[in-house]
Amino acid sequence: MAKGQILGKTETVSLGQESYLRYREDEGQFLRGTAVFGERTIFGYPKIGRILNLANSIKEHFLAPFWLEEKIDGYNVRLFRLGDEIVALSRGGYVCHFTMDRIEDLLDTSIFAAEPDLVLCAEIAGPDNPYHIGSPPFIRQDVRLFVFDIMRVNETRFLSQQEKIALLDRYHLPAVENFGRFTPGELDEMQTLLARLNEEGREGVVLKEDSVSNRRAKYVTGNSCLADIQARARDLLDLPEEYFTSRVLRLGLYLHDQGQSPPEAMVCQLGHAILDGLVAGIHQYHREHKVYHTYQCRFHQRDNALRFLEQLRREAGHQVQISQRALQRMDDYWLLKFDRIYPVLTGFLGKLFGGSLVFD
Amino acid sequence: MAKGQILGKTETVSLGQESYLRYREDEGQFLRGTAVFGERTIFGYPKIGRILNLANSIKEHFLAPFWLEEKIDGYNVRLFRLGDEIVALSRGGYVCHFTMDRIEDLLDTSIFAAEPDLVLCAEIAGPDNPYHIGSPPFIRQDVRLFVFDIMRVNETRFLSQQEKIALLDRYHLPAVENFGRFTPGELDEMQTLLARLNEEGREGVVLKEDSVSNRRAKYVTGNSCLADIQARARDLLDLPEEYFTSRVLRLGLYLHDQGQSPPEAMVCQLGHAILDGLVAGIHQYHREHKVYHTYQCRFHQRDNALRFLEQLRREAGHQVQISQRALQRMDDYWLLKFDRIYPVLTGFLGKLFGGSLVFD
Repeated sequence: MAKGQILGKTETVSLGQESYLRYREDEGQFLRGTAVFGERTIFGYPKIGRILNLANSIKEHFLAPFWLEEKIDGYNVRLFRLGDEIVALSRGGYVCHFTMDRIEDLLDTSIFAAEPDLVLCAEIAGPDNPYHIGSPPFIRQDVRLFVFDIMRVNETRFLSQQEKIALLDRYHLPAVENFGRFTPGELDEMQTLLARLNEEGREGVVLKEDSVSNRRAKYVTGNSCLADIQARARDLLDLPEEYFTSRVLRLGLYLHDQGQSPPEAMVCQLGHAILDGLVAGIHQYHREHKVYHTYQCRFHQRDNALRFLEQLRREAGHQVQISQRALQRMDDYWLLKFDRIYPVLTGFLGKLFGGSLVFD
Repeated sequence: MAKGQILGKTETVSLGQESYLRYREDEGQFLRGTAVFGERTIFGYPKIGRILNLANSIKEHFLAPFWLEEKIDGYNVRLFRLGDEIVALSRGGYVCHFTMDRIEDLLDTSIFAAEPDLVLCAEIAGPDNPYHIGSPPFIRQDVRLFVFDIMRVNETRFLSQQEKIALLDRYHLPAVENFGRFTPGELDEMQTLLARLNEEGREGVVLKEDSVSNRRAKYVTGNSCLADIQARARDLLDLPEEYFTSRVLRLGLYLHDQGQSPPEAMVCQLGHAILDGLVAGIHQYHREHKVYHTYQCRFHQRDNALRFLEQLRREAGHQVQISQRALQRMDDYWLLKFDRIYPVLTGFLGKLFGGSLVFD
């Protein structure tokens, strides 16, 4: 896969001997990440709006009862069949060589033999997520896959909850937890559920209206904001700065929504979430003259690991440097270890430790 | 005073019946904030570079011993004589009607009768600082003034430390604390001093080389970063976002410089610094449909209070709304209370509590 010709909002991306068209930006129903393989279009996964005040937002947006499904902290893929292969597309419409290498470990792909036009929308998460730090606490190793929506090739709409559940059951697909169907009035029940998810360190929920219009919204727990901050503290200067302020604000609003004053333990955890990683990064710079995080993930095929690294380097652009650390046999896999180097913090600390003055 | 005609990097500002030229931007030695009153030019106060690693920065920048003076958390003014009046200019070159109203309370102005060409550079600080929240802990009420540099009209250079000390002594002027003259090798002594200032909740130091080239740098304590964050937490969305990240980074670097792991109390204090004000702001919005902070300061002349409010409104522009709360006699003063409303956080919370979806 290599980036190719750019044509307005699309570009051609080569994949093996073939190539496909990727939408770099939204164009009407062709959302960013839409991928066109000849006659087959895999539509982009639409953004889901966030709500930060459960009661008022539900009153404002939902006209019918809705399902609450778990929101998993991982990366989004769309899986579909192309010839004999199952292709995994990232949110942006790139092929993910890691997912494709591991697909048979993650789900039973026989569904695609029976239903060749399905598109499974899934989150892949776990400590060996190679895209970002942080994992649902109930995944102890490697990664797992959780289907949360099903579409069809050449269609923008999602299958209904009933159709989806029928397919999940028939093919024993791993899926996000469904917490049930709620009416807008069942606010206390929802807050109790969210308090439990928060306690368990889980990210939050997606609300999906049980109707043709299928309205949606997402809502996250306070602890997931802390986890986000903790995961990226070393990334302080490389991230868009609203990353931190928006999560702190979400945390404050979550607590307000739960009718809670900030518990002392959570306040201290916020301090730790920010400071621990940053201080570790400063020490890391002092020792090794760079600030980075080491990721690992395993592959069946050595070639796919190299292809994946190439993909990461291309996607990271100038923002982040990717550096291979090891690629070795472990059990039945090739274990890849690589570093993501944070160039802005690395450069800034370099100047400071070099004795530079800063004019701010 | 009203803003007038803009001419390149300058604008004319009217002051009573007169007017003067203010530099809106640097133009060679005419730094931003330089003010030209006919034949008399009051040069802008130059920026002082910040250092974040004491040992290396001193090695890099200072060629001779230097004085350590206290850095006070207040606002910067330049005071000079214009006819019969003592005029106070803000960093940006605007007249400060609050300072001018209170000047006789803040220092003995007889120095200007004897030395009409002096420009006193001073910090004004205290709980009644009308420009920003936060005060040195040793000022219990109102504001106080601390001279830290002396210039002359029409000259860009500062008087030497010896000349300055002689004038401070002769005229009994209030000044920032001078912690003495240090050689670059006396690092432990400096770190001990900084640890004490940090303990006492004081902002930090300015290093001033005892030489003709008069090199300078500033260095702040970890606790001053926490105080900054605490002071502005409600201002989370209205501030440039690097406000928070830069202070967290400074805190981490301060701790590293002191060879300290973050003490648990400081970690929790960071959590509180961020969350307490923000949660208070959310509650404030919920109650009053706006997020604001109430300031107070006292004046001798009622007119000056009104002039000052007008000045604040003009300088705040569209970013911040100023709203008078009270102006009443208290003891020998007019006590002004006013609110600074944070429009971005106010607007954002308005949307959220109205049930809006956020696409981020």
